[in-house]
Amino acid sequence: MARERLYGRQPVREALRAGRRRFFSLTISKNLTKSPEVAEILSLAGKAGVPIDAVPRNRLEALAGSPHHQGVVLETSGYPYVPAGEVIDSASRESLFLVLDHLQDPQNLGTLLRTSEAVGVSGVFVPDRRAASITPAVSKASAGAVEHLKIAMVGNVRRTLDDLKDAGVWIVGLEKVPEAVRYDARTWDLPLAVVVGSEGKGMSRIVRETCDWLVYLPMKGRIDSLNAAVSGSVFLYAVMHEFL
Amino acid sequence: MARERLYGRQPVREALRAGRRRFFSLTISKNLTKSPEVAEILSLAGKAGVPIDAVPRNRLEALAGSPHHQGVVLETSGYPYVPAGEVIDSASRESLFLVLDHLQDPQNLGTLLRTSEAVGVSGVFVPDRRAASITPAVSKASAGAVEHLKIAMVGNVRRTLDDLKDAGVWIVGLEKVPEAVRYDARTWDLPLAVVVGSEGKGMSRIVRETCDWLVYLPMKGRIDSLNAAVSGSVFLYAVMHEFL
Repeated sequence: MARERLYGRQPVREALRAGRRRFFSLTISKNLTKSPEVAEILSLAGKAGVPIDAVPRNRLEALAGSPHHQGVVLETSGYPYVPAGEVIDSASRESLFLVLDHLQDPQNLGTLLRTSEAVGVSGVFVPDRRAASITPAVSKASAGAVEHLKIAMVGNVRRTLDDLKDAGVWIVGLEKVPEAVRYDARTWDLPLAVVVGSEGKGMSRIVRETCDWLVYLPMKGRIDSLNAAVSGSVFLYAVMHEFL
Repeated sequence: MARERLYGRQPVREALRAGRRRFFSLTISKNLTKSPEVAEILSLAGKAGVPIDAVPRNRLEALAGSPHHQGVVLETSGYPYVPAGEVIDSASRESLFLVLDHLQDPQNLGTLLRTSEAVGVSGVFVPDRRAASITPAVSKASAGAVEHLKIAMVGNVRRTLDDLKDAGVWIVGLEKVPEAVRYDARTWDLPLAVVVGSEGKGMSRIVRETCDWLVYLPMKGRIDSLNAAVSGSVFLYAVMHEFL
C-alpha cells in the first residue's frame, strides 16, 4: 500500500490516537514549541514505537508538500478505507450516513467530513473516480476527523444508494430543483443517508432520481448558492441537532 | 486608493453587476470559452466603458497572483467598505448583523460572507488589524458575495457592539464556554448581531463579556470543534430560516 505523509498537529495527533494506520516515522521541526498537542504526539509516537527524527524547520515543507505542517510530519500507510458492505451492514435505527456524489475540492471535502464526525455520522461513501479522495490535505482540512470516520470508497454511487435502501435507510439529496422541499419543512427520521453533490454541477441525474426526497436551503441574496461544505453542514445539523 | 485585481468569473461578474468599484481594465484569456457568465462579463464591462485586453492564458496567473483566475482578471479600486456608523444607523426590526472578532483565514472569511449574503445579513463588521481583510482571495472564496454586502472596518470591536446595543440590537456570540446555551435552545429575535471569533482562539475576553448571550453548537464526535465558517453558517441559518 502506498505510503503518505500526514502533516499538521491535529491530523498527526488524531491518526496516532485512532491507531488505524501503520506508522513508519515521525519527523518534527528542531526547537518545536512543546505545546500539550506536541507532547501528546511525542508520547503516542513513543508508545507506538515510531522512529522520531528532528530536522531543521525548512526541510519539513518539502517533506509535507505543504507550508501548513506546523512542525510535524507523520509517514503512514494510506487512508484506512472501510469496505462499503461493512458500513452498510452497520446501519441501525440511529444511523446517519453521508454520500458524496463527486465533491471535487479537498478543502470542502475535509470541512464537510469534520462536521460529519462532529454530529456523529456513522459512515461516509465517496466515489472512487472523478472526486477528491482522502489525502493528507483532506485530513488537514478535516482537523484529523477522517481518522475517526468510517469512509468507504465506492465504484457506483447509485448502487450504494440502492443497497442503503435495502437496509432500510431513507435517502435525502441536497439539491435546489423545482421538486425539492425546504430543508426545514419537516423533521428527518433516522436511519437516513444525506447525499451532497459536486460544487457547481450538483449530483448526477441518476443519483438524484434515486433519492427519496430532495431538499434545498432557502436563500434571499444575490448569490444564489452556498459553499458545498456549508450547505451539507447546515443540513447535517438540521437533521442531527435533536440527537445531540 | 490602492488598486487590486479581482480574479475568477463570479467575483468579476458580481463586481460589475454591483457597480460599487471603479473599473480600470478587464484582462481575459485568449480563446476563452464563451459561457453565459463570460458573455455577461464582457457585456457589463463594455457598457461600463472598461478597456478589455485578451492575452495568452499563461500571463493571467501572474496577473492574478493565483491559478484560480478562470480566464478573467479585473483591475479595480479597493474594496468599497462602508462606514460603520452608516451600517449601524441602518438597523431595523429585521436586521441581522455579523461581527467578526479576528477571523484569520481568507477562505473561511469568504465562505462565511457567502452564507451571510445568502441569508440576507444587513451588514458585517471586521476588525482593521490582526484579521483577514476583504482581498481578491476573500472575494473569490465568497463567490463574489462581498460585492453585494455592506462591510465596515472597525478599530474596536467592543465599541461597535456597544453602538449596536445602543441601536437596540441584541448581541449573541458563538463560543463554547460553560455559560453558553445551545444554539437551538430558543428562537432568536431580530434585530440581532452574531459574533464569530477567530479560528482556534475564539473571541477576545472583552468581546465575549459584551455579548448578551453566548451559544454553542452541540457535538458528539472525537474532534470537538468545527470549521469557523461552518459554525457561523449553521448558526446564521438557525436564526434566519424562518425569515427566508
